[in-house]
Amino acid sequence: MRSPEDMARSARVSASRPCGSGESQAPPRFDDTFRRGLERLVLWRRDVRRFRHDALDPALLERLVGLASRAPSVGNSQPWRFVEVADVARRTAVRRDFLACNQAALEKYEGERSHLYASLKLAGLDDAPVHLAVFVDRATNVGHGLGRRTMPETLEYSAVLAVHTFWLAARAHGIGVGWVSILDPAAVGAVLEVPPTWHLIAYLCVGYPAEEHLDAELERHGWQERQDSPALIVRR
Amino acid sequence: MRSPEDMARSARVSASRPCGSGESQAPPRFDDTFRRGLERLVLWRRDVRRFRHDALDPALLERLVGLASRAPSVGNSQPWRFVEVADVARRTAVRRDFLACNQAALEKYEGERSHLYASLKLAGLDDAPVHLAVFVDRATNVGHGLGRRTMPETLEYSAVLAVHTFWLAARAHGIGVGWVSILDPAAVGAVLEVPPTWHLIAYLCVGYPAEEHLDAELERHGWQERQDSPALIVRR
Repeated sequence: MRSPEDMARSARVSASRPCGSGESQAPPRFDDTFRRGLERLVLWRRDVRRFRHDALDPALLERLVGLASRAPSVGNSQPWRFVEVADVARRTAVRRDFLACNQAALEKYEGERSHLYASLKLAGLDDAPVHLAVFVDRATNVGHGLGRRTMPETLEYSAVLAVHTFWLAARAHGIGVGWVSILDPAAVGAVLEVPPTWHLIAYLCVGYPAEEHLDAELERHGWQERQDSPALIVRR
Repeated sequence: MRSPEDMARSARVSASRPCGSGESQAPPRFDDTFRRGLERLVLWRRDVRRFRHDALDPALLERLVGLASRAPSVGNSQPWRFVEVADVARRTAVRRDFLACNQAALEKYEGERSHLYASLKLAGLDDAPVHLAVFVDRATNVGHGLGRRTMPETLEYSAVLAVHTFWLAARAHGIGVGWVSILDPAAVGAVLEVPPTWHLIAYLCVGYPAEEHLDAELERHGWQERQDSPALIVRR
């Protein structure tokens, strides 16, 4: 079942070496410096809504999407589909859908919270140089259905994992990502003329951030504080 | 709206400094070494099903879950709930559910693929020292519904992002994670006696891997190859 090439790629723990000491196929050992960096990456990731207009290097975007395509996926189904939205008319249509959905959402709030909602900046659609829509292909047969019988939603989750991989990798390059969910997924699919089996997972605004923060935008502007759970882990 | 403390926490890009040069609140600049490490982390993450029996340091587990709790979440809703399953009777019940679901899944395949499915190792439930079930609390009002009107599934997606954060951080510590989805979510919720509004997102086996691989288990054992998409990014 395994080719010699496969076996060469599959190295044992005992062959591990420090990360950064070469591009070998031996399993990496990550050190404290890397782990601290990873923690800072997670803490500083942020959902960005304020972008500079500077263009993104298309080769870098391709590289980030390539890495995102190495995310975990149920049954190795790799169901993520990436659509870069460059066409001005399509961007305008997406923006129009956001405005309608955002207005409808605003009408659900009352009093002070309504005012607060109206004051929030919830998308960077106007400024972000890159719009990247991420879909899941619900009709894919890749992976032969493995792992999806009792939890079919793991197909969507796989595309979410790709979005997160993209997000972290982008941030490591100083690039900000904002996830817009105030959209009608079917409307966006229609605007982008994707196959009907593709379902929208995330509409991402991507570009260099105009400012950087350690705290979340929604926390900073008084919408929702961080929760300090009394027990982080429930025991059973 | 912003306290002086908030403002102190929110630093500008111009104040950035290289990552690792201090624990300041200034935005980190990640360097090539870190980015290469992150790429290797993504490539070597893997879904682990073969574990050593060595115990995990509970403080480290707590730290990893703490970092996972800094994942992105819709409306800053932080809806993830972590349950460590230590009780032997509960573990046995989860294992029994896995075996039943796996048998039912096997019966959907025919011929050679059925044999192949039967030969795969699809969970590390017997060996992993830590079982961590991750739920989403669908009843949470944290985040006040922001971002969830047209795409309510983003609540579940937020918990998926926490799982992925945990996974990557664990791997950076040399710890392997295997995501078991061949389970009945309602049955697992009942076994673990969690509130009825908690819905299972992932059941994770966690521990030190018995072996490490660059290629996916399902690829190595002939179930599903990596896809080389002709176009990584579709343009619209």
